[in-house]
Amino acid sequence: MTTLVEYADASPEVRAVFDDIMSTRKTDVVNNFWKALANHPATLRRTWESLKQIMAPGALDPLTKELIYLAVSATNQCPYCVASHSASARAKGMTEDMFGELLAVVGMANQTNALAAARQVPIDKQFQIPD
Amino acid sequence: MTTLVEYADASPEVRAVFDDIMSTRKTDVVNNFWKALANHPATLRRTWESLKQIMAPGALDPLTKELIYLAVSATNQCPYCVASHSASARAKGMTEDMFGELLAVVGMANQTNALAAARQVPIDKQFQIPD
Amino acid sequence: MTTLVEYADASPEVRAVFDDIMSTRKTDVVNNFWKALANHPATLRRTWESLKQIMAPGALDPLTKELIYLAVSATNQCPYCVASHSASARAKGMTEDMFGELLAVVGMANQTNALAAARQVPIDKQFQIPD
Amino acid sequence: MTTLVEYADASPEVRAVFDDIMSTRKTDVVNNFWKALANHPATLRRTWESLKQIMAPGALDPLTKELIYLAVSATNQCPYCVASHSASARAKGMTEDMFGELLAVVGMANQTNALAAARQVPIDKQFQIPD
Amino acid sequence: MTTLVEYADASPEVRAVFDDIMSTRKTDVVNNFWKALANHPATLRRTWESLKQIMAPGALDPLTKELIYLAVSATNQCPYCVASHSASARAKGMTEDMFGELLAVVGMANQTNALAAARQVPIDKQFQIPD
Amino acid sequence: MTTLVEYADASPEVRAVFDDIMSTRKTDVVNNFWKALANHPATLRRTWESLKQIMAPGALDPLTKELIYLAVSATNQCPYCVASHSASARAKGMTEDMFGELLAVVGMANQTNALAAARQVPIDKQFQIPD
Repeated sequence: MTTLVEYADASPEVRAVFDDIMSTRKTDVVNNFWKALANHPATLRRTWESLKQIMAPGALDPLTKELIYLAVSATNQCPYCVASHSASARAKGMTEDMFGELLAVVGMANQTNALAAARQVPIDKQFQIPD
Repeated sequence: MTTLVEYADASPEVRAVFDDIMSTRKTDVVNNFWKALANHPATLRRTWESLKQIMAPGALDPLTKELIYLAVSATNQCPYCVASHSASARAKGMTEDMFGELLAVVGMANQTNALAAARQVPIDKQFQIPD
Repeated sequence: MTTLVEYADASPEVRAVFDDIMSTRKTDVVNNFWKALANHPATLRRTWESLKQIMAPGALDPLTKELIYLAVSATNQCPYCVASHSASARAKGMTEDMFGELLAVVGMANQTNALAAARQVPIDKQFQIPD
Repeated sequence: MTTLVEYADASPEVRAVFDDIMSTRKTDVVNNFWKALANHPATLRRTWESLKQIMAPGALDPLTKELIYLAVSATNQCPYCVASHSASARAKGMTEDMFGELLAVVGMANQTNALAAARQVPIDKQFQIPD
Repeated sequence: MTTLVEYADASPEVRAVFDDIMSTRKTDVVNNFWKALANHPATLRRTWESLKQIMAPGALDPLTKELIYLAVSATNQCPYCVASHSASARAKGMTEDMFGELLAVVGMANQTNALAAARQVPIDKQFQIPD
Repeated sequence: MTTLVEYADASPEVRAVFDDIMSTRKTDVVNNFWKALANHPATLRRTWESLKQIMAPGALDPLTKELIYLAVSATNQCPYCVASHSASARAKGMTEDMFGELLAVVGMANQTNALAAARQVPIDKQFQIPD
């Protein structure tokens, strides 16, 4: 069973990551996901550092990135991830209509992925990787 | 083995869908996916009608929808779908940088989905659905 | 790289399984799947013995069992399994219409599975397991 | 968080779908899945219309279709879908023995799908799609 | 809804399997998984016999086998399986550090699996199966 | 379509990562996976740095880590990942018997994961996370 590491009980190494999470996100709450990862400080630090880089604004804006995160999480049937990333997406501006359309695309993609596999559809010449 | 139904050999019902695909997409090419679905005309029509509605501009723009489609297809390991939807995304404006960032998010989501499951992370109070 | 174990090169233990496969299926062909499993004879024997029991007629007929096998294989994006089990299903009587309807159900199930996850739908009282 | 849209609070468009669900299924209960989808009326209507067509009797009977739905839902680890579709399958005549055999096939398919991938089994000539 | 078959209510065939589980594992507890499978005695017996053979010491030691089981269960998002196999792995000697490293590998594998699919990476000559 | 970035055409940033891959692995070959990731240098560097840390000897030895990587890749049906990580595992000492036992566990885990989901097995008291 994984215990949640609370700030009060955390090592200095874990606290440094928790501090960065709270300061980057401008909040005083550390989610259970990070408290669980804190059982292995190297994974906590590496995962947080990667996530911070990846979710920062770039060629894609932060909301689009959250929508993509949510699409993957729903496809993988991850209840924790759907709960936390739909909250994040809403905080970054996802409206009910956007959520509805996101899910319509996610549902359709899961449907056609299975159809393409079942029909063993060969990749069209125009989509192929050249040798 | 699934055969691909070519326009020349298609029934009027199938041709009507193929015509709508080409006219909606302003192209004279029908992808193999649709030629394969044409073996079951009711599925061809229903899938195309749904896809046309879902991928149209709405609260989310068509490029964002393609990015989401691609995220799901990569997660599901569907080679045909990755090939066709990365082509569509590029046609709608996805740059190499956007593709790179999309994949970074998809990779990270697949990673943290597995970590959340393995750690059996309980959903935070603030993310829970109220009774 | 997995090599395929041919009958001529097989040990007596492997040949005994190959013989049973050919005699049970009334054919003189052993599929590549079994030739690949033959690299680990204990797995070959156990998998074949289980499969033979499971796919035999029972409360469900053999064709229904093949349809279910194909539904799982398409969902998992397994090209080998889709190819071999759609051939088996056709050999047991699956018509083009049955295949089309099977895929329509498989596609819809994959779609609604993702929607249920994304919406975090609570299980209805009437479906719940009593304590 | 997704709220469940109750009939009393639903728009006329949503009520029309709820009415059709109850009348088609000869029941006065609308499952939570549909109440959750009702947050996006276009998805509610499209999903219900598709499902109604797909699950109707055809080349496959309704029970066989439910078994296939359940096989996909178990493979995808969707708790809601397993709960609701095993209830539907029982209502349509699935006995305990049929359920047991269904699961045996689903389990075996998930096992051999992974084995085929891990062994990189090449598709047999007789199963290949001709060029 | 699946009921759990308790020893007191079990048939002689089921009791024989339960007895073997308890004697093999040197415990007087039968987990819910087996009580649930007992609704279909043939599946109970076949699954237990296979599991007993597969998880026994061999070229891989029992702890390594449990780590692999846990890796698959986390990837598949199976809450029951993660809970039971992380308990088994701890009982066989998995330390917190080993668990942390296991999860780091599982997370990275899930990440790079999606990246390889999305980039449609061709298999290197040196990894290919020869014709 | 993803192109493979060859060393001769690579930017200094990409070359630095390629050099580190070759020096760490004591080889003069860079696999296609890294050449494909090189289209997005930030992802190339981050993924390589994480992988190098994660796969290094620790509480688990490098071979055990490769076995786990392979188990996840087979479960996800990733052909590239299965091909490259089975080659790595063999290079680190995986024998044919070890590979056979690994696959037996992976197959069984995928089977019982589906059974646990389909039977909606409740988590045993002794496995539960305490509040």
